[in-house]
Amino acid sequence: MQERPLLFERIAVMGVGLIGGSVALAAKKWGAARHVIGFGRNRDRLQAALGRGVIDEIASTPEELAKCELVVVCTPVDRIADDVLFALNATKETSAIVTDAGSVKGKILTAVDEVFENDRFIPAHPLAGSHQHGFEHASANLFLTRLCLLTPQPKQVSAPKTLLVKQFWEQIGMRVQTMSAEEHDRILALTSHLPHLAASVVASVVDPKLLSYAATGYRDTTRVAAGDPELWAAILSMNAPSVIEGIDQMIQSLSLYREHLANNRQQALVPLLQQGCENRRQYREDPSHPDDGT
Amino acid sequence: MQERPLLFERIAVMGVGLIGGSVALAAKKWGAARHVIGFGRNRDRLQAALGRGVIDEIASTPEELAKCELVVVCTPVDRIADDVLFALNATKETSAIVTDAGSVKGKILTAVDEVFENDRFIPAHPLAGSHQHGFEHASANLFLTRLCLLTPQPKQVSAPKTLLVKQFWEQIGMRVQTMSAEEHDRILALTSHLPHLAASVVASVVDPKLLSYAATGYRDTTRVAAGDPELWAAILSMNAPSVIEGIDQMIQSLSLYREHLANNRQQALVPLLQQGCENRRQYREDPSHPDDGT
Repeated sequence: MQERPLLFERIAVMGVGLIGGSVALAAKKWGAARHVIGFGRNRDRLQAALGRGVIDEIASTPEELAKCELVVVCTPVDRIADDVLFALNATKETSAIVTDAGSVKGKILTAVDEVFENDRFIPAHPLAGSHQHGFEHASANLFLTRLCLLTPQPKQVSAPKTLLVKQFWEQIGMRVQTMSAEEHDRILALTSHLPHLAASVVASVVDPKLLSYAATGYRDTTRVAAGDPELWAAILSMNAPSVIEGIDQMIQSLSLYREHLANNRQQALVPLLQQGCENRRQYREDPSHPDDGT
Repeated sequence: MQERPLLFERIAVMGVGLIGGSVALAAKKWGAARHVIGFGRNRDRLQAALGRGVIDEIASTPEELAKCELVVVCTPVDRIADDVLFALNATKETSAIVTDAGSVKGKILTAVDEVFENDRFIPAHPLAGSHQHGFEHASANLFLTRLCLLTPQPKQVSAPKTLLVKQFWEQIGMRVQTMSAEEHDRILALTSHLPHLAASVVASVVDPKLLSYAATGYRDTTRVAAGDPELWAAILSMNAPSVIEGIDQMIQSLSLYREHLANNRQQALVPLLQQGCENRRQYREDPSHPDDGT
C-alpha cells in the first residue's frame, strides 16, 4: 500500500464524542494528523478519552488551540457556531483552518459570518454516524467510503484552504462533494430530517402498551426515533424552513391517502404506494448506499 | 426432547407463497401435520413447490380439499374471504376447520359470516413475515417465538375448534393470543399499517436523485416502503376506518411540529421528540420483540 504524506502535524478536535473521537482515531490511523489534542467542556470525559488513546493530549485554553493547524468542531449542532467562533478567535494570529461536522450548515455559516470576516472556516458534514454515543464507540473506520459534504462560501470553493479540508476528509476515507449551504440544508431536510420526524411521529402515535403487537415494520420505521431528543430538536429547529416544506409535502401525501381510503378507492392507492416502492428500490439497488441490512 | 402428538393427518394450504410455504414446512417439521397438500391458482408454481418438498401433493378440486382436516388460507389479503368461503363450501359435509393468515380480520370475518352460518372458520394472523416473496424463501422456523393473533367470534372463543387452531399455531412455534377482530384491526392499524404508510410517504417525498445523500435514517425509516404496492393497497383499504384514525393522529402531530418550527420554539420540540424516543426505547428494551438489529 502506498503511504500518503502526513497532512497535519497537530490538529484539535473540539467535542470528543462519537464523531469527534472517530475523527481523532481516523486522523491518526490514516495519516491525516500525527498528534490530536482534545478540547471539551468535561475534563473527566477528556481524561477518559486520553486514557483510551483516542486523543493524545488535552487542551483547555485558546493558546493551546492556537498551536494547531486544523480545528475540527464536533460539538452538538446548536453549539457549533459558538465553538467555531471561539476557535477562529483563538487562532486569529495564525493560518489555522477550522472545519466542523454539523448536520445543518446555513445557520452556522451565517452566524459565523455575522461576527467574523473570515476565510478560515470551511464547513463540512460527514454523513456518518451511529445510534450510539460517546468516544467509547468511536472508530477509525466510521467514515470509510461514506460521503462528506463541504459547504464553503462561493468565493472560497477553490481556495487552497478548502482543498486542504477536502483532503483531510478524503484522507480519513470519505468521498467529498461540494455544494452551497442552502442546497445542503434543503437536501438533508428530505433525506435525513424528515425520516427522523416521521419515525418520531409514528413512535409517539403508537401507545407503548401495543408494542408487543409490533413487528419488523414498526421496528425499522421507528428505529431512529430513539435518537437524542435535544440534539434533534436543535437540528430540526436550525433547518426549520426546509423541514417545514418537507412536513407540508408529507401532510399533503397523507391527506391524499386519507381521501382515497375514505372513498373506498383501493386502486387509487396503488400508484401512491408504487411511487414510494420504486424510489426505495432504487436506493436498495445502488451499491454505494449503506448496506441495506435486509 | 419430548415428542408432541401429531395434530393432523392431512391439511391443505391455499396459496403457497412465503407464508403458505412456511406453514407447510413448519407443520411437517414440528409435527402439526403429517401430509400437506398445496392448493393454488398457478399450477407451475405448485409443481415447483412440490419439487422442492415444500408440499407433499397438489390439489385443485373441492373434493380434494374435503379430504383435509384443516385448511390454512394464505392467499393475498383481499382474496382470503373468497378463498375461505370456497374452502368452507368444499368441506361442508365434513368437520374440517378453516383458518387463515390475513393481516386484516374484520372485513374477512364479516364477508364470510354474511354468506355462511359457520362455526368452522377461526381467523388468525401470524405476526411473521419477510420482505421476500415466494415459497423459495419459506422457512419452517419463520414462526418460532412470534405472536399469532386469533380472532374468533365471541361465541367461539372457547369452542373446541378454536382450541385446536390455537394448538396448530402453537405447535409451529408461535405464542397465541385471542382478541376480537375489531381490536385486532385497531391495533394493527397503528403497529403495522401506519408505519408502512409513513415509510411510503417519506420514500415518495424524497426525490430519487437525492438518494446518494441518504444515510441510515432514510434507509431504516423507509425500508418497508419497498413492499408490494398491490398487497398494501388491499391491506390499507380493508382496514380503512382504523388507518384513517392513525393518519389523523399523524397529521395532527406533524402540524404541531410545524407550528413550533414556524415559531422558532426549539425547546417545545423536545417533549414531542422525547415521547417518540421513550416509546421506541421501551420497544428496544423488551427482549420479546424482534431483534432490533441495531
